[in-house]
This record gives sequence, C-alpha cells and structure tokens, in this order.
Amino acid sequence: MTSTAVPAPITEQEIFAFHEGGKLSVETTQPLDSQRALSIAYTPGVAQVSRGIAAEPQLAESHTWASRLVAVVSDGTAVLGLGNIGASASLPVMEGKSSLFKTFAGLNSIPLVLETTDVDEIIETLVRLRPSFGAVNLEDISAPRCFELESRLIEALDCPVMHDDQHGTAIVVLAALTNAARVTNRGLAGMRVVISGAGAAGVACATILLEAGVHDVVVLDSRGILSAGRGLDGAKGELAARTNPRNLEGGPAEAMAGADVFIGVSSGTVPEDILATMAPDAIIFALSNPDPEVHPDVAARHAAVVATGRSDFPNQINNVLAFPGIFRGALDSGARRITSAMKVAAAAAIADLVGDDLAPDHIVPSPLDPRVAPAVAAAVADAAG
Amino acid sequence: MTSTAVPAPITEQEIFAFHEGGKLSVETTQPLDSQRALSIAYTPGVAQVSRGIAAEPQLAESHTWASRLVAVVSDGTAVLGLGNIGASASLPVMEGKSSLFKTFAGLNSIPLVLETTDVDEIIETLVRLRPSFGAVNLEDISAPRCFELESRLIEALDCPVMHDDQHGTAIVVLAALTNAARVTNRGLAGMRVVISGAGAAGVACATILLEAGVHDVVVLDSRGILSAGRGLDGAKGELAARTNPRNLEGGPAEAMAGADVFIGVSSGTVPEDILATMAPDAIIFALSNPDPEVHPDVAARHAAVVATGRSDFPNQINNVLAFPGIFRGALDSGARRITSAMKVAAAAAIADLVGDDLAPDHIVPSPLDPRVAPAVAAAVADAAG
Repeated sequence: MTSTAVPAPITEQEIFAFHEGGKLSVETTQPLDSQRALSIAYTPGVAQVSRGIAAEPQLAESHTWASRLVAVVSDGTAVLGLGNIGASASLPVMEGKSSLFKTFAGLNSIPLVLETTDVDEIIETLVRLRPSFGAVNLEDISAPRCFELESRLIEALDCPVMHDDQHGTAIVVLAALTNAARVTNRGLAGMRVVISGAGAAGVACATILLEAGVHDVVVLDSRGILSAGRGLDGAKGELAARTNPRNLEGGPAEAMAGADVFIGVSSGTVPEDILATMAPDAIIFALSNPDPEVHPDVAARHAAVVATGRSDFPNQINNVLAFPGIFRGALDSGARRITSAMKVAAAAAIADLVGDDLAPDHIVPSPLDPRVAPAVAAAVADAAG
Repeated sequence: MTSTAVPAPITEQEIFAFHEGGKLSVETTQPLDSQRALSIAYTPGVAQVSRGIAAEPQLAESHTWASRLVAVVSDGTAVLGLGNIGASASLPVMEGKSSLFKTFAGLNSIPLVLETTDVDEIIETLVRLRPSFGAVNLEDISAPRCFELESRLIEALDCPVMHDDQHGTAIVVLAALTNAARVTNRGLAGMRVVISGAGAAGVACATILLEAGVHDVVVLDSRGILSAGRGLDGAKGELAARTNPRNLEGGPAEAMAGADVFIGVSSGTVPEDILATMAPDAIIFALSNPDPEVHPDVAARHAAVVATGRSDFPNQINNVLAFPGIFRGALDSGARRITSAMKVAAAAAIADLVGDDLAPDHIVPSPLDPRVAPAVAAAVADAAG
C-alpha cells in the first residue's frame, strides 16, 4: 500500500457495465409538465413554427435543433483497428464520439450507422436526410473509399463535412509537430518527414503538413516509398505526385536515413536499426493503437521527442483535441465547408495552448483540458470568417 | 382581478421563444470527465464492446442505445392541418414528438425528416439506417401513400413500425368510444357509427372499431358515403368492402340519420340540422384541429357525449395518450410488430384508467396523467406476449 495509488486496471467487466443500455440519451430542453407547455411544444402551438419555416426556410436554423446537430456517420468498414466489422458493431464507437461532442464542445449529435458500404448509396442516404442535421462527421470508413466519399459528400451537402480519421488525426499531428519543432529548434520548412501508412490518416497528414509549409514529405505504404516510378493511381498516385521531392525509391531504410521526423499511422512496426539512422534530435510519433510502431522506450533511445496514441505515455495524439472544436467553430461561424485554412488554424490553436509548459514530454495539451475545444472553435470560426 | 385567474393566452412570441434552438438535447448517460472514463467510453475500451457485437450481434441490443431508440420519421407531406409543407418545416413537430416520447415513456427518440416523398426511397433509406434505431414512428405522411408506406415498411424492417396519425388517433378514439358507450348504456356491437374522413385517421378508426366489435360503420369522404357502387380502389375500395353493411348511398344526411356516433376526422363541417337527425343520447367526436367539425356547444344540443381534439374543452382526444405507451410496451416486450391485439389492448387500458371518474364530460384521462403511458405499456407488452 502506497499513498500514490496506481489506478486499478480497467477490466472487461467494467467496460461492458459502462456500455449497458448505450451511452446516449435524448432529453427535452424544457419540461413538458403542464397543459400550457404541451400546447406550445406540440399542437396547436407548434403549427405556428412549422408555418413560419414553410414561409421562411431560414427560420429552421434558429428554431429547430438541426442546424447545430452533428450526424456521426459510419458504415463500419474500418472500425478502430478492428477492420470491417459492420454498422452495428461500430455503433458503440459512434455513441462515444457523440458523447465527446457533447462533453467537450456542447454539441448535440446522433450516430447514424449504415447497412450499406456503397459510396453512391451512402451519399444518397445523407442527401435525403439533409434537413435532419447541420454537419456530418464521417467515421471509421475504409480507405480509399473514404476519400471519394468525403469529397463527393462535400459537394452534395451544403454543410460542414469532415472524415475525422483523416483530418482529426492530421490536425493533432500538425499541432504536435509544430511544438516538437519548437522544442528541437527546427523550422517546419526544413524538415524531412517520413509518414508510414498511406491510408486515411497518412494521406491527410501528408496533405496538412504540405499545407502548413513542410517541403520534404516521404510516404511509405506496405510496398515501400510512394514514388512516380511505381505508376500508382487514385489517392496514392496523387500523393506520390505531391510528395517525395528527392525522388527516393525503396523502403523504410531508404526513407528514414537522415529523416528528422517519423510519423507512424500504419499499424506496422519499425526496426530499431532503422530508427538509429535518423537525424540527431529526431522526432518519432508512433501512433498505431493499441500497439505503437515502436515502443516509446525504444524510440526514446533515438529521438528527442516521442509521441503515441496512448494515454499511458506522454504526448498522447488524440483526435478529441480537434474534432469537437472544429465542428463547434464551423457551426458557430455558419461555415458551409471546413477548409484547409480552418484545419491549419485549429492545429495552431492546439499547439499554442501548451504555452510555457512546452517540453519534450509535453507537446500537446491533455485531452481533458477544457480550454482546448473553445480555443479550437474560436480559431476555426475566425479562419472561416 | 379575480382569485381564479384565467391563464394568459399563449402568444406567438412565447411560442417562438420556446422553440429557439430546438427542443431536444443529446446527453451522455455517464460523465466523461476522467482519463479512465474516456478510456472506457472511447478508445481503447470501446473496442472490446465493438468486437463483442461483431462476434455476437445480439449484444447490440443490450450494449448500444439503438434497440430502445425510436426514429420519428416524416417527409413533411401532411403536417398537422398544414398540408405538404416539406421536411424542414415538419421538424418542430417531430422534435415535439420526441419530447413527448421522453416525457411520458422515458424513451429516447430522434427526428429523421426526409427530403423525398417517394415511398420506395423512404423505405430504402430506413432499411439502410436499420442498425441505428429500434422502432419507427411514422408521422405526418399524406394519405393514401401512408398506407402503402406503413405496410411495406413493416415487412422490410424487423422492428415495431407505426404511423401514429392512423393508429394513435384510432386507439384513443376507441378508448373514448368505449367509455362513451358505457356512459350512454350502449354496447359497441349494436352501434351505428359514422366516420367523416377517409384519410389516415379515418381509415384506421374504421379498422380498429371493426376489430373491436362494432358492426355498423359508415365512412364519408368529400364525395359522400364509401359504397360498393362507387367503384373505389386502393384503401378506400378496401374500406368500402369492409364497411357500410346496410349499403347506404348518398351523403352526410343519408349516413347520419339515426346514427349513434359521429366521428369527424375530416377538417370539414357538419350542419346542425343533420346532427339533429342522430339517435337519442348521441355521441359526437369532432376531432378536427384547431377547428372542430362542429362547435362543442352546438354539438351538445344533440348529443349526450361530446369530445374534441382541443385542450380547452372536456374530453380531449389526444394521441399522446397512446403512442408513448404503445412504443414503450412494444420495445419492453421485444415485439417485432405492433399487432391489432396490442392496439385494442392499449385502447382498453386508456379507457379503464378513467375508472370511477367516468362521466359524460370525462371519458378519457388527461394527457398529463402520468399513469397513462405505464398502463398502456403494460397492456401492450402483455398483448404482445
């Protein structure tokens, strides 16, 4: 027995008990406990509001919940690290997401899980439901379908749409990298960055880093470096054209020699002898969950800054730092799209919150820090304006 | 100034202020204010629940909110008395409905309003969303489309589906008529009943009254009595075949002569001279809202029992007496369908609650009576078993 008690490990029983009956509840904003309230909230009073919206459609934004409601949408094809386990099995994750929207950004949201994996059908379904919500958070949708789905949905719906597995991760990575660069006295422009993984998160990380001023990004998939010589098409082909400015060929060894930064979003592993070839004061983000590409203790032998996706090590790269504030800011500002500028602004706001506490083992705020979502929302709304 | 203050009339301003920002809120059932709660409700803990459901799909019923969530679905084609005003303008009504589900039956529900009026597309959309909810309350969908939509949806989804404008109204009408019969010393079997209106409510009222043992039901539409001679097809043709046992022809005058009961669900009007031809101790339900087919004071000159849809007269026929308890009972019992037996049981439970207070001006409980939904739920669950 010590005074600094280590928390008991979380048991399966505790997890299942927590989830029993689901994690969400729909409540009324005002009690309906009198004849007067009934007559206002329902017939006959409500008819005046319906008639008002019919005459002036804009009124739906102020007098229904839809304009500030986030639909959390999944087809269950890439759930956490579990793969294509289906819509119903993805629902606990979507309920969790909705819980986080409310907890951190005060936003209402509803999980909509779909028993179709056809991109056309998903778009068609959400277009039909359009008057029911004000924004769409796509979640756990497999690559490369997620790229087409997101870009077509942005065109089809006149409201904020974001695939969080892409952009939420990318925004927090940019925030963390901004601070890791500060700690190691680097500039983003001069860095050599290797991204391991060309799925949803890898593509978005590469894109936002280029957007933010990084010039030298090299992306690896399971077959090696994305390069023009491989004749890739689709999202990987586009990425090959925008990255790898030194025209490297080969695999992890060729990519990593002399690199300043390693970002793992691949669920693969990196051998220690390759990490040893990185530049001095390297930066390693091993973000696979629950098993990082390299154990943080091993990474620390070869890097000045190490981050993971786990809460039990320092520097947790957690999407919850981004998505609640992003959607809150987009909805607060009435934005119709979530632009690159809004994403980069969100990353800067997250990075800046660390302030004077900046240190190699403290490059991002805690996911529980209540200042984060409001700061992100303000920065995003500002960038939207 | 008197001591029995009349409540101030409800103003438009009060109604719009009440609706500002919408009437619903999504909350977390447990706080996410610690790293431990985050790790349970979201990654990594939630993965165990998702994996569990993938392995054993039944687990979704106990460990997500979906199995007890009612989707309140409308296409905005027949909103209150306002007609086809569109999905967005229907949303305040659907939010009100969800508020009532929570207030009276403790059920979570979400409004889903659809920007399509095509029956095939509505069905297709709900089939794709199936893992997201546990029951469907169809609302404010125009006749005769509503009949086809409901019956096909019942086949397409393995969960309770009910169009409340049909069956909610019919169930409360049956409850009220049961007690009106008691008060006037009649039996249901011997009554002559005239229903004015062959839309959603009219068809369902006729159906449930026949189901409950009424033999002589005559239905009027805007052209007169539904009769074999009119060569009707669809829902009206079926209704003509099941009603009008004395093969009447003509209009309101022919239908009403000697009738025991008039049920108005038509938004039309009935001349007083026709009411004067009804049987002694007649029963008049003038349910059009906000303007009854005949003013209750006029109706009272010719009837022993008068009911309306309004809260400012005695005997308010209000769907809220039925739908919260119906869905609660269906979900409590795990029923896959809401059967005729369950609907008739619900009506009996509502009627019986009036008990010793039964009187010509008290044939149904108050919509605010908190005993109603639990009693209806219990009766429905019992009839499902």
